[in-house]
Amino acid sequence: MILRDLIERKRDGGRLSDDELRSVANSAAAGSVPDYQLAALLMAIFFRGLDGHETRALTTAMLGSGQVLQRPAGAPPWIDKHSTGGVGDKTSLILAPLLASVGVTVPMMSGRGLGHTGGTLDKLESIPGFRTDLSLARAAAQLERIGCALIGQTAEIAPADGRLYALRDATATVECIQLIAASIMSKKLAEGLTGLVLDVKRGSGAFLPELDRGLELARTMIALGEAAGVPVVTLLTAMDRPLGNACGNALEVRECIETMRGNGPADLWTVTEALAIEMLRLARPTITAEDARTILLDALHSGAALEKFREIVAEQGGDVRCIDDPGLLPSAPHLADVRATRSGVVQAIPPRPVGHAIIALGGGRTSKDDVVDPAVGVVLRVRVGDAVTAGQPLATVHARTSVALAAAIERLRGSVAVGDGAPVNVLPWVSHRITSTGEELLGP
Amino acid sequence: MILRDLIERKRDGGRLSDDELRSVANSAAAGSVPDYQLAALLMAIFFRGLDGHETRALTTAMLGSGQVLQRPAGAPPWIDKHSTGGVGDKTSLILAPLLASVGVTVPMMSGRGLGHTGGTLDKLESIPGFRTDLSLARAAAQLERIGCALIGQTAEIAPADGRLYALRDATATVECIQLIAASIMSKKLAEGLTGLVLDVKRGSGAFLPELDRGLELARTMIALGEAAGVPVVTLLTAMDRPLGNACGNALEVRECIETMRGNGPADLWTVTEALAIEMLRLARPTITAEDARTILLDALHSGAALEKFREIVAEQGGDVRCIDDPGLLPSAPHLADVRATRSGVVQAIPPRPVGHAIIALGGGRTSKDDVVDPAVGVVLRVRVGDAVTAGQPLATVHARTSVALAAAIERLRGSVAVGDGAPVNVLPWVSHRITSTGEELLGP
Repeated sequence: MILRDLIERKRDGGRLSDDELRSVANSAAAGSVPDYQLAALLMAIFFRGLDGHETRALTTAMLGSGQVLQRPAGAPPWIDKHSTGGVGDKTSLILAPLLASVGVTVPMMSGRGLGHTGGTLDKLESIPGFRTDLSLARAAAQLERIGCALIGQTAEIAPADGRLYALRDATATVECIQLIAASIMSKKLAEGLTGLVLDVKRGSGAFLPELDRGLELARTMIALGEAAGVPVVTLLTAMDRPLGNACGNALEVRECIETMRGNGPADLWTVTEALAIEMLRLARPTITAEDARTILLDALHSGAALEKFREIVAEQGGDVRCIDDPGLLPSAPHLADVRATRSGVVQAIPPRPVGHAIIALGGGRTSKDDVVDPAVGVVLRVRVGDAVTAGQPLATVHARTSVALAAAIERLRGSVAVGDGAPVNVLPWVSHRITSTGEELLGP
Repeated sequence: MILRDLIERKRDGGRLSDDELRSVANSAAAGSVPDYQLAALLMAIFFRGLDGHETRALTTAMLGSGQVLQRPAGAPPWIDKHSTGGVGDKTSLILAPLLASVGVTVPMMSGRGLGHTGGTLDKLESIPGFRTDLSLARAAAQLERIGCALIGQTAEIAPADGRLYALRDATATVECIQLIAASIMSKKLAEGLTGLVLDVKRGSGAFLPELDRGLELARTMIALGEAAGVPVVTLLTAMDRPLGNACGNALEVRECIETMRGNGPADLWTVTEALAIEMLRLARPTITAEDARTILLDALHSGAALEKFREIVAEQGGDVRCIDDPGLLPSAPHLADVRATRSGVVQAIPPRPVGHAIIALGGGRTSKDDVVDPAVGVVLRVRVGDAVTAGQPLATVHARTSVALAAAIERLRGSVAVGDGAPVNVLPWVSHRITSTGEELLGP
């Protein structure tokens, strides 16, 4: 393979063969081709796209560049969920123990926060001692023992994707549907899944804000799953406002624990339950959605889900005392409220300014190498559509320093919009359900 | 400057500011930004282009990333010629001494061969001892002494272009008019010129075969020159067949010496004279083309041009005995003819197969690091339109080994087309003259 020639062909709108894409993936994984040629190829792909066959071939090639988890013969179903991310999007921390508590094995490989979006690994690591850097062998053993492992992408998994993703991030070639789909699916297929639920966010805080782009990503990933024999169910959910109240790593863990105690915010449960039902139905295709819901609510209300979370935390080295006493989680020394400057109705709580406030507080990343402060963040005190009076707290900021506190309050005061009348164009929390056989509109 | 953001903006069709382009050029020159980000930016520019203002700003920024030759106050005019290259395109070796012999200073910075096109530096270095790696200080001293210096692009000149050009070559982003124009002009403006003649080749052997692309390059470079106060005159010349008979480094030097003795091929002189007239008229704008022609023919026939060539060779360490005895130039041990397989008329001698035959003989490069064999090459024995009989020699191959000889003969036999009737669509040697004030059609 002469990579320069492949770049030129793709640049001019041509196709890359399976062998060529395998060669690209393997040499990317081995580090035997220069980053600048891969970067140019990625930008050419950004402009010219990949067709369905090329996207499948790239996914297979990236998957094949590393190791995979092997589901033992006769084992229970292995189901995971992937979200395109957002602000306050913490459903993974609830779904993994909840599903594992009802007999579904959840081999969940997650990422870190970047830009305005948070990441599951950062949230988990706010639990003192919690380790996410498990080897595949150790994750496999834990899956067999307790039915769940919450890990990061190791160097063993799809190393070609690891290198290409880092390059895409640095070269403004992330927002390409086929590359996104291939990247996600190469990792998810490495988990040895029997089914995958995909949570594609839409709205201003989503990675792909526009509905049509979200739908395109969903369809692309569903096709990739189908080609690999793994059914994929996609829900389109709202990210025009943060999900739940807590935004920030330890603050979100605390909200998840409350939710597993049955006391979480309604919106967070709405989205979590919808995703959980899809996961359970992929594991047990013969049950109805209503049956699935009953089973899941039982696991929640009986405390089985929280008990499973305790097992996971213990297995992965975390301090289980945090579960009963969330005060043991990292907490920030400086708190103050953002207050309404007028009376009226909350019109919008745009997620990006909240995410950027968290970055400014030290709780997020602008580059992969940033270290996050687990304690800081923002807890919303009102929802879109709530009536408020002037001076009423809209959100509480948790900061490391008084200077950062004042800056975040200033930043958020201009972002949470209070106006007159009912807010318009608020997205339904769960709006579309998409599978390989059809697309259903769910929301109003 | 956050380079990632500039990549994203250009990717989405936005503009880069002067400051941003200067920052790109300076950090490319300093090596303070990663190659992969520059590669992605170049591919985004390939797709989105640069507008006239951006192209000027990039040229200025690349020029400013390094040192420049300073023409002393009151010095004679400094004029150079640049060609987009081709097979047998050896006019520089004649133009530089010819113009210097009539009082024009020629600070000529040239390149090496790559792909099917030859390079002036390789040709010069086939003269034993000839050094092209002069420092700018030494080149300046030589210019003052003898009015001409033939050098390569040093690390001192437009280092940003050096780095970007190497990346473009490796990432299939060479063929972008604005990047080509900025690259050439950043180097030419560093020569301290008072005027530049541009030889844009067209036809199948040209870097940009299509007329409209050649015209676009000419207009872009003329605008860049004008913005910098340097008049640029462009001639469009033919590269649908090799220029002259000799193709290959030492063989071309020999043909240039013959031409300076007044015995060169007519087509080579036609193109050389046209370019020389433009160079002289840029130096002495008040004289007519006919006056210029007379002055140049005098310099040729008096031996002044060849004498100047001798001075240049001596100054740059070359063996001057080669000029009187070209048998001292490197020569290949294996020679044989390509013969016509039928009688008829030569329809075409496409330059690319000839160039590729020279690469296969070891006389050209497929990558920058290849070492060239100065002795090998191809000497044409017929021209397009000549009547030939079966068995007549069409070309003589000069090879290092008998194996390479046989392969080149085989390759060329299929390339030189002999058929019936007059050949069609043969391009005029000089077809267009383009300046900042107008465009003239010259050829039939």
